Amino acid sequence: MSVGRQPANDALYRVVVERVYPKLDGGRYPVKRTVGEQLTVQADIFADGHDAIQAVVRFRKVSDKDWWEVPMLLLGNDRWAGTFRITEEVPYLYTVAAWIDRFGSWKHMLAKKLAARQALRSELLEGAALVEAAALRAGQNEKDWLRVQAEKLQDNSESEAVAAALDDRLQEVMLRYQRRDDRSEASPPLMVWVDRPRARFSAWYELFPRSAGTSAERSATFTEAEARLADIAGLGFDVIYLPPIHPIGQSNRKGKDNSLEAGPTDPGSPWAIGSNTGGHKAVHPELGTLGAFRRFVAHAREVGLEVALDIAFQCSPDHPYVREHPDWFYRRPDGSIHYAENPPKKYQDIYPLNFECEDWQALWQELLSVFLHWVEQGVRIFRVDNPHTKPFSFWEWVIREVHAIDPGVIFLSEAFTRPKRMANLAKLGFTQSYTYFTWRTTKQELAEYLTELTQGEQSEFFRPNFFTNTPDILPLGLQTGGPGAFKIRLVLAATLSSNYGIYSGFELCESEAVPGKEEYLHSEKYEIRSRNWRAPGNIRPLVSQVNALRREYRALQYTNNLLFCDIDSTEMLAYLKLDPANERHLLIVVTLHPFQSREATITVPLDRLGLRRHDSLNLWDRLSDQTFLWHGPHNYVRLDPMLPAHIMEVTR
Amino acid sequence: MSVGRQPANDALYRVVVERVYPKLDGGRYPVKRTVGEQLTVQADIFADGHDAIQAVVRFRKVSDKDWWEVPMLLLGNDRWAGTFRITEEVPYLYTVAAWIDRFGSWKHMLAKKLAARQALRSELLEGAALVEAAALRAGQNEKDWLRVQAEKLQDNSESEAVAAALDDRLQEVMLRYQRRDDRSEASPPLMVWVDRPRARFSAWYELFPRSAGTSAERSATFTEAEARLADIAGLGFDVIYLPPIHPIGQSNRKGKDNSLEAGPTDPGSPWAIGSNTGGHKAVHPELGTLGAFRRFVAHAREVGLEVALDIAFQCSPDHPYVREHPDWFYRRPDGSIHYAENPPKKYQDIYPLNFECEDWQALWQELLSVFLHWVEQGVRIFRVDNPHTKPFSFWEWVIREVHAIDPGVIFLSEAFTRPKRMANLAKLGFTQSYTYFTWRTTKQELAEYLTELTQGEQSEFFRPNFFTNTPDILPLGLQTGGPGAFKIRLVLAATLSSNYGIYSGFELCESEAVPGKEEYLHSEKYEIRSRNWRAPGNIRPLVSQVNALRREYRALQYTNNLLFCDIDSTEMLAYLKLDPANERHLLIVVTLHPFQSREATITVPLDRLGLRRHDSLNLWDRLSDQTFLWHGPHNYVRLDPMLPAHIMEVTR
Repeated sequence: MSVGRQPANDALYRVVVERVYPKLDGGRYPVKRTVGEQLTVQADIFADGHDAIQAVVRFRKVSDKDWWEVPMLLLGNDRWAGTFRITEEVPYLYTVAAWIDRFGSWKHMLAKKLAARQALRSELLEGAALVEAAALRAGQNEKDWLRVQAEKLQDNSESEAVAAALDDRLQEVMLRYQRRDDRSEASPPLMVWVDRPRARFSAWYELFPRSAGTSAERSATFTEAEARLADIAGLGFDVIYLPPIHPIGQSNRKGKDNSLEAGPTDPGSPWAIGSNTGGHKAVHPELGTLGAFRRFVAHAREVGLEVALDIAFQCSPDHPYVREHPDWFYRRPDGSIHYAENPPKKYQDIYPLNFECEDWQALWQELLSVFLHWVEQGVRIFRVDNPHTKPFSFWEWVIREVHAIDPGVIFLSEAFTRPKRMANLAKLGFTQSYTYFTWRTTKQELAEYLTELTQGEQSEFFRPNFFTNTPDILPLGLQTGGPGAFKIRLVLAATLSSNYGIYSGFELCESEAVPGKEEYLHSEKYEIRSRNWRAPGNIRPLVSQVNALRREYRALQYTNNLLFCDIDSTEMLAYLKLDPANERHLLIVVTLHPFQSREATITVPLDRLGLRRHDSLNLWDRLSDQTFLWHGPHNYVRLDPMLPAHIMEVTR
Repeated sequence: MSVGRQPANDALYRVVVERVYPKLDGGRYPVKRTVGEQLTVQADIFADGHDAIQAVVRFRKVSDKDWWEVPMLLLGNDRWAGTFRITEEVPYLYTVAAWIDRFGSWKHMLAKKLAARQALRSELLEGAALVEAAALRAGQNEKDWLRVQAEKLQDNSESEAVAAALDDRLQEVMLRYQRRDDRSEASPPLMVWVDRPRARFSAWYELFPRSAGTSAERSATFTEAEARLADIAGLGFDVIYLPPIHPIGQSNRKGKDNSLEAGPTDPGSPWAIGSNTGGHKAVHPELGTLGAFRRFVAHAREVGLEVALDIAFQCSPDHPYVREHPDWFYRRPDGSIHYAENPPKKYQDIYPLNFECEDWQALWQELLSVFLHWVEQGVRIFRVDNPHTKPFSFWEWVIREVHAIDPGVIFLSEAFTRPKRMANLAKLGFTQSYTYFTWRTTKQELAEYLTELTQGEQSEFFRPNFFTNTPDILPLGLQTGGPGAFKIRLVLAATLSSNYGIYSGFELCESEAVPGKEEYLHSEKYEIRSRNWRAPGNIRPLVSQVNALRREYRALQYTNNLLFCDIDSTEMLAYLKLDPANERHLLIVVTLHPFQSREATITVPLDRLGLRRHDSLNLWDRLSDQTFLWHGPHNYVRLDPMLPAHIMEVTR
C-alpha cells in the first residue's frame, strides 16, 4: 500500500499573507516617501478554522538589523492595514507578518462558554498554560507578573480566575509574549525610498539666464542674473530652474522662431549642446565661467533658492564628443553621423547619442560623470530632458549611481509620453515627473486625472510637478483666457500639487503664440528676451500670496491629501486639502471660467473634517481675507475671474 | 573630479516587460486549464524612443527543454496579448519576451522618408546590413534568399530596391531571423497546471449508498446500490458522489434529525467516522467489503459513471486513531480529548484532528495515505469536507503529493466560507470548488456572481461546481417554489457552470425542511431512506434532457464562455454560451419566477455572434423543439414555470 512521502520540516504554516500593498511590480521598485510621511501597508491575511490572528507591519532602516512593528487592523473581507511613520532620511524596508493569536482565540472561546454558562475549569487551565509559556519569553518584570496571572487562572474561585482572564493588561502583555514561532511573513521585504522634503514640496521658477539682463541685444551673464534672484525668492519660489547652460553649437544653428537659418547674432537653442569651448560639463562663455556659476548657486542659496539644472543628453555637431567619440553616435553607412529626424522633419543641429553603441559602458560612465560634475558644483536638482527617448535601463543605473554618492539629489522627469512610460520612469528612480496637467482643463478632466494621480497606485511612486507653462508649451487656455486664465491655472497648479512650477513670463500673463500652435511666439529658446518684470497687468501679488500660503499651510505641502467635494456647477471645482496633522484643513474652490462669474452650491463632507451634520463651519478665505459662517454641509459660493478662487482655512 | 563606476555588462536593456497576466500571487500558484483550452497572456510592454517592438508568449511543457512561441499583438495603451492552446495533459510553463523590432523600425522610417520624397540611398544600405546580419542566423534556404534581398536593397535602381524593402515575405522572414540578443523576458516563467477534461466538465449526482435499496429499515449494500447506477447514468450524470463510506462511530452517535440521543437502530452520521472495525481506509460493514466497493466502482465505470468519495478528516471517538494516536487530537489539561464545539453547541460525536500537533508529520503522512489508499481502489475524484478548517499548508502539500503519483486526481473543495479562503484553496490546488450559487437567486445576484467567477482573475484558477442542493442545504427557494423552482435551479446550475451537481431527491422535488432552516427534514445524514424514484411530479425528463444537451453542445462544457444579454425584466435572465470552436453557440433564457409567466424584450449582442445589425437569427429551442426566426437584436420572449427556460441553438 502506498504511504507517500513525509512532509518537509517547514511545510506547516497556518496563516496566509498575500497581496501586500504597496508592492511595485512584485517588489522590483521601491515606493517613495519623505521624512514625516506615513506608509500604510495592506495585505490579505487569513488562516484556517476559527482562530484569531495577530498581524503587524514590520519595518526597519536598511542599515539597521532590528525590526520595528506596528499592529495591523482588520478592514474587512480579510484585508488588514497598518501604518508607520518615516522618521529618518534613509531607505527603509517593510514587510507583513502574521500569526495565530492563541491567547485571543482562547479568550474568545472562554467568553462564549461563559455566556453559555458552561463549565470553565478546563479552559482556565489551558489559559494558564498559555500564560506560563509566555512568561518564559517575557522580560523579568513581566515574567513575574505573568506567573502571578497564571496562578490566578488556576484559582479555586472561578469568578476570580475569570476576572484575571478578561483583564485588559493580560491581553496586552500576552499579545507581546505569546508564541510566534508559527509566524508567516511576506517575503522578501519591500523597500521605501526616502527623499529629502523638497522632493515633496517645491515651487519652481524657470528662467533663461541669458534673458535675465536688461538688454535683448546680448546674453546676460550669471553675475547679472543674480540681480533677479531676490525678486524671485520674494515671490515665494524655492527652486530656480535653468535650461541648459552649456556652450551652444554653431553648425546648423536654429534662428528666431525655430527658423532653419540663424542670423549672425542669433544665440541658438540652449538644447543644441556643445561647441569648441566644451560640452555638458562646460558653461557657455557668454554666461560666464564655472566659478561665476558657482557664485550664482551660492547667491541663490543665500536668498532661499535652490538651483536646478536641465540635463539634455544630446549634442550639437560641434560637441567635443563628436570629435573624440564618433562611435557614441549613430553612424550612416558612409561613416557620417545621423542627425535627429522625424520625416519629413530634420533636426540637423542635434545629434542623438546611441545608448546601445558598442562602447556603451564608456558612454554611460561619461554621462554619469556629467551629473557628478554638477553635483560637485553644488547642484542637487536636475530636470532631465526627454528621458523616454533614452533606455530605461540607463536611467535606472545612473540615478542609482548618483544616489549612491548623494541620496538627496532630485531628478525631475520631463517625459511627455504615454502613461506607462511616464510611470516607469518614476518607478525606476525619477523623484518628480512632468504631467498632463497642462492639457487637463475641464472639471471632469481635472477630477479624473487628480484622482488617478493621488488615489491609485501611482500615488506611491509618481510625484507630479504641475507646470502651468514651459518654454515648449503655451497652453491654448492661456492664449485666449486673459489674466483670469492665468490666475485660475496658478491656483490649480499650486494647490492641487505640492510640487508646481511656472516658466518666467507667466506672471506677466504673456500669451502671444505661434498661430495654431501651443508654442510661444518669439520663443526664448531661439532668442534673448528682456522684460519689464513689473509690467502692468502682472499677477505677481497673487503669485506671492499663493506661495506664502503654501509655506504657511502643511495641507498644501502634500499632494495625496486631496478630497474632491461635490459642487453643482460644471465650471467650478471644490476640494479639501487635509492637514496630515489634522489641525489646519483647507477648503479650496476654483472657478474655471476666465471671463464670467459663476455660482453654485457646494457640499462639504463634514465627516472627513471630524464634524457632524449640523455643525457650523468657520471659513477664513486667505486670498480675500473674508470670513464666512456656514451651517451644515450645503453652502452657496460665488466666484469671478478677478479673484477666481477661495483658499479657506476651515475651523469649527 | 568624480567619474563614477562603470555599468555592469548586463545593465543595458531597451524593452520593459511588466504586469504579466495571469500571474497568481507573484507566480506562487499555477493557473489552470484542461487540454484543448487556450491561455491568453497579457503584459505591459514598451521601450524608449520610437522603435517598434516584437513580443511573444513563450511556452513549453515542464518536461521539455524547447520553447514554442506565439506572437503578441498590441491591444492599446502599451498592453499586449498573445494566446496559445494546451494540447497535452501535462503542466506547462509560460513567459513573455520582447525585443526591439529593428527591421520594422527601419521599414517604418523608410516609408516615412519615401512619403516625404527624401533621399533613400543611405537608409537602403542600412536595411541591407540588417538583412545580411539576419542571413547569418537563418537556415540554409532562407540564408540564400536573404542574401539575394540584401543585394536588391543595394541595387542601383531605387524603385527595385524599395520594392524589395517593402516585400511582405522579407518582413515575415526578418521577424524570425533578426537579432534578439536585446530580448527582455519576464522571469521566472509561470506555470499552468493541466487537468483532465472532467475537471472542467462534469455532472454530479450525490447518493447515500445505504439509502439505495428498497427498504428504510436497513442499510443497502454496495451490491444493492449497483442497481441504481444504470438509472443515474441514464439521467446523463457522469460522477456519482458518495458521502463517507467508512464505519460509523457508536459513541455519542446522533439520532434522527440530529437529535442528541440515537435510538438502537439509528445508523448514525457518515461523517462521524471510525469504529472498532476501522477508520478512513475501511468500508462500513453494512455497506459491504472493500472488494464490494471495488466492484461498485467497476460497475459504475461500465455504465459511464465515475465514483467520487467524500474525504472528511475528522474522527468519531471510536476511530482507531484515537486509541493508537491520541496525540493527533487536541487534549484537555486532564488528558481527555477535545470534541468539536462552538459554544453553546457541542459536537460530542466528532473529534477534530490537530494538524499542528507535535507529531504532525506522521499525521499528515497518514492522511496522505488515506487518499492513496482510495486511489488504489480506483477512485480519482475526492470531495473534501470542510477543507478550510484544516491548514492551507496541509492541502497544498497533500494535493501536490497525490498529483505526483496521479496528476489526474480531482479534488472538490467543500468550503462554504469567506471569499478569500475559498479562493486560496482553489489556488493551492483544489480542482473544483463549491460556491455561493445556492444563495444567489435574484437576477442581479446571479449576474454579479457569475461575472466575478467567469470574467475576473478567479476564472484562471477557481472552477465552480454549482450544486442545486446538498444534504446540508435545502435552499429556501426550493422549499417554497414548487416544481418550477426546481426546474429553474436545474437549468441555471447546468448551463451557467460546466461543473454542476444535484443531491438525490432533487429530481423528485423533495422540499420538506426543518422549519425555519435550510436543513432537510428526516435528513439522510441521520437515517436511512427509501424512495420511489419514479414518484409523480418528478422532473427526471428535464434532468435527462438538460444533461443530454450538455453532452451535445461544447458551449455547455466550458464555464468562462458566458456573456449576459440585456433583457428588460427583473425576473428573467438571458445569456450566450459561446462555442469555443465558434460553431454552435447557445442563447439561454430563464425565467426566475416559479409560479407566473414572464415576458420581456431581449437584446442579443449580434456582433459577438459574428452577425450584423440587420441579420436574421434562426433559433432552435432544444427544450421545446420549437424554432424561431428573429430579425435584428431586439426580440420578444415569454416563459412560464412549466418549462421555464429556452436553450436555443443560434444559426444565421
